[in-house]
Amino acid sequence: MAERDFIARLLSPLATSAAARGLADDAAVWMPPIGRQLVFTHDVLAAGVHYRPADPPGDIAWKLLAVNLSDLAAMAAAPAGVLLGLGLSAAEDDGWREAFAAGLGRALAHFGVALWGGDTVSGLGQAVLGLTAVGWVEPGKAMGRAGAQPGDALWVSGCIGGGGLGLAVAQGLRPPDKSLLNRYRRPTPRLALGAALGGVATAGMDVSDGLLIDAQRLAAAGGVGLAIAIDAVPLTAPAAGLAEIMAQATAGDDYELLFTAAADVDVAALAGPTKTPVTRIGTVVAGSGLALSFAGQPVPLPDRLGYEHG
Amino acid sequence: MAERDFIARLLSPLATSAAARGLADDAAVWMPPIGRQLVFTHDVLAAGVHYRPADPPGDIAWKLLAVNLSDLAAMAAAPAGVLLGLGLSAAEDDGWREAFAAGLGRALAHFGVALWGGDTVSGLGQAVLGLTAVGWVEPGKAMGRAGAQPGDALWVSGCIGGGGLGLAVAQGLRPPDKSLLNRYRRPTPRLALGAALGGVATAGMDVSDGLLIDAQRLAAAGGVGLAIAIDAVPLTAPAAGLAEIMAQATAGDDYELLFTAAADVDVAALAGPTKTPVTRIGTVVAGSGLALSFAGQPVPLPDRLGYEHG
Repeated sequence: MAERDFIARLLSPLATSAAARGLADDAAVWMPPIGRQLVFTHDVLAAGVHYRPADPPGDIAWKLLAVNLSDLAAMAAAPAGVLLGLGLSAAEDDGWREAFAAGLGRALAHFGVALWGGDTVSGLGQAVLGLTAVGWVEPGKAMGRAGAQPGDALWVSGCIGGGGLGLAVAQGLRPPDKSLLNRYRRPTPRLALGAALGGVATAGMDVSDGLLIDAQRLAAAGGVGLAIAIDAVPLTAPAAGLAEIMAQATAGDDYELLFTAAADVDVAALAGPTKTPVTRIGTVVAGSGLALSFAGQPVPLPDRLGYEHG
Repeated sequence: MAERDFIARLLSPLATSAAARGLADDAAVWMPPIGRQLVFTHDVLAAGVHYRPADPPGDIAWKLLAVNLSDLAAMAAAPAGVLLGLGLSAAEDDGWREAFAAGLGRALAHFGVALWGGDTVSGLGQAVLGLTAVGWVEPGKAMGRAGAQPGDALWVSGCIGGGGLGLAVAQGLRPPDKSLLNRYRRPTPRLALGAALGGVATAGMDVSDGLLIDAQRLAAAGGVGLAIAIDAVPLTAPAAGLAEIMAQATAGDDYELLFTAAADVDVAALAGPTKTPVTRIGTVVAGSGLALSFAGQPVPLPDRLGYEHG
């Protein structure tokens, strides 16, 4: 399928907003909401690095959108539109492209996000899929990684470890489990919770590379330390002992929100209407880095805290 | 160089705007200008497809920014900020990355554009460089490809053919010529002219794939025909006869603006303050497609009108 056919037959029908101008112009034109700050992110997924080439193309499209929306959620922003930058290889044949576009359409509809534009290049040796997501937030309410204060409570949404377990299922290292596989292939950006945290959380980010490595980054950005009760971390799968907890707390691809709030903020009440589970897992302390405890006793940091970008 | 070092050491110093938040958060946050529409574009350059891998990395950065700003110019928009999506291979070594970042910094400064964020992935088989450009335009003044009316004049900015001739120099098919090489490697987006045409031109686009193929697209988008005096086309190099004219009129990478305006609009006066040459090359007619003439006589369309995206 030629690039122009891919765009005209498969992508243009998804670009139904006026801003997209039918993907027929050189750029999209959008009137932003009055009195809002805009939030921009761009994440890239490469075949064989961020997803498995044999993953269903519709799920790859979902993940491409979801990981970017997760960045918006981490800023307390609501999504508005996206632009695609698709580099495709011969492996992404017509059937792949049709399934990808169909899945993208479903994902856009699910999250209520508009496809505004983008670019497609074929003939590469390997697929590299980029997406820019644009959202908005009330001025001053964007979350950021800096801002945690000693005494704040440390919270995490949902359950941790499912992304890594789902990858193990995909790799045949664990028994088939559709639910875990979906955690890896079709993560859920915490948009409603993120929006509820805007102006309340003192700091926040999404957990993409592993809970502990991302917690370490949150601590570093704020110039603080984080005391984490590792046995309080809500895990996707039951863990028999510290090693299994650590395995889940250092796996990536969870796309939960990790955030801090003043100790007297009723975070559970705030999260309730968003139907997102939240769990307090620790406390912000003076100093730097992570201090882990298990059953009230200090435990050393594992050698590997999560996924390190080469 | 690890991804985080590339970002921290080489890209973060370029991200000086408040919106970029030092590239330390999950997304950028920007307050858009009041009462303006926003314009979004994303173009991808792949090594070996859109640029030659041996091109100077600083020039590749320039071209990546320039081709996207050219899309903003084609919409009559002024640029504000960009996000990068860089997929890199082992060929883009530390020296390449340093030279790319240095060139990107110079290009951003030249065009007065902010680096807001993005993502970098290493370890690919081939470099694929994406960039999202965000700009703004007065409501209703964005140009588009549709809108040309029979009787309108057809104009083009600058000179045509230099991109293709520069590529031939780079390929060793023409004698060394720094000026032509720069036309290919360091195109000039026509931002000032584009802004001046907003609300005046009835239709417009940038010439990226070749004058004739892009003119055909402009005609199709407007549901009109274009009568083009091929001997009126301003060429980069002197052409001895029709074949040499056609070669330049069907080469790509020019990034000039092709636009239509009512016949009574003094386009030259409008373009004067922008210091951009403009040439009338034809007329919008009822019908469809292109009708070429040379010395007042009809000439057939060449078989190949420009670069067709596979």
